[in-house]
Amino acid sequence: METDSPLLLAAVSLLSALHMGYLTQRVGRSRMAHNILPPVITGPPEFERTFRAHQNCVEFYPLFLVSLWTCGTFFSEVFAAAGGLVYMVARQMYFSGYVTSAKKRLPGFILNLVVIGILSLLGSIGVLHGILYKYFLI
Amino acid sequence: METDSPLLLAAVSLLSALHMGYLTQRVGRSRMAHNILPPVITGPPEFERTFRAHQNCVEFYPLFLVSLWTCGTFFSEVFAAAGGLVYMVARQMYFSGYVTSAKKRLPGFILNLVVIGILSLLGSIGVLHGILYKYFLI
Amino acid sequence: METDSPLLLAAVSLLSALHMGYLTQRVGRSRMAHNILPPVITGPPEFERTFRAHQNCVEFYPLFLVSLWTCGTFFSEVFAAAGGLVYMVARQMYFSGYVTSAKKRLPGFILNLVVIGILSLLGSIGVLHGILYKYFLI
Repeated sequence: METDSPLLLAAVSLLSALHMGYLTQRVGRSRMAHNILPPVITGPPEFERTFRAHQNCVEFYPLFLVSLWTCGTFFSEVFAAAGGLVYMVARQMYFSGYVTSAKKRLPGFILNLVVIGILSLLGSIGVLHGILYKYFLI
Repeated sequence: METDSPLLLAAVSLLSALHMGYLTQRVGRSRMAHNILPPVITGPPEFERTFRAHQNCVEFYPLFLVSLWTCGTFFSEVFAAAGGLVYMVARQMYFSGYVTSAKKRLPGFILNLVVIGILSLLGSIGVLHGILYKYFLI
Repeated sequence: METDSPLLLAAVSLLSALHMGYLTQRVGRSRMAHNILPPVITGPPEFERTFRAHQNCVEFYPLFLVSLWTCGTFFSEVFAAAGGLVYMVARQMYFSGYVTSAKKRLPGFILNLVVIGILSLLGSIGVLHGILYKYFLI
């Protein structure tokens, strides 16, 4: 049993991957609702907002995973996992808001940036601390 | 020598990254064949299908990596690595099919979803089992 | 303190994630400069080049992370971390070049491919060596 491995980070990563899968499915359903067959990516404004909302989630997903795992490994696993859950809620706010109107994407987007910013900052502190200790004996 | 590290997961991840690189190159060759210079992303249907086929692979790649590593770490490395190889074959089916016609993307796509679904499910079981054992002593 | 964990790979991953965040912000600023409101992704050539430059960085980012970590885990952490820094410089060259003209994206792009190629090759050697040793006692 891998109980030494970061179970909480793995759980949050899996949940976030499932959430991304759900958002991908939302784009597919929007295609069907507006009768827009692949590979077309243009159409009525609501479809284009849905499509772009998903693209933005895709762009940020690897940045989220890097900051989640760095913070969780070198700062605090529990804190990082909690941050990851907030990130998912913020992504959902962003996505649902953007589908309604371009302006309503902003609250979720800002919360996303705040969460990634905090995870990265704490991760950086942990990594820097580790490097100073390991390589410079400080 | 890092023999404790998950060598099979690393091997499958590297192979899948090379495969993604190959698909990226296919888009580049399609650009040349249809004389579509960057940054243009519209053109004849075959180019647009090739472009979208690659984009879909890009969108799913992080979800694949998360499910591969979670299943491989918390359920079974050999099983996850085998699933990863099937995923690559399915992605190739999807890509080659989509280049031919939008409809022919479906068999590969469905197989992709099945593989990611199984990897995520087994990964979730492993992670949940680990969390119950580690944090709740069940 | 997680001093056994790959601190240098974590540091380079965090730096590269911040760099990706900076490039995302460049697209946002280009939107503002050309007054192109989301979800629109077409506009004057300079905006479209900036947009595509970022998209290409997004497409390659997971491939970079896989080759960075595999090379760093199974070949040499210091070498991989140094390669990762070169990759970031090359991405910046690529991005700044592409914003100026489509042709000027090429030097940075080729350097990117060279770095990913070397990291993947050394990673593959390390993984193959490990697999032969662990599973076949060679």
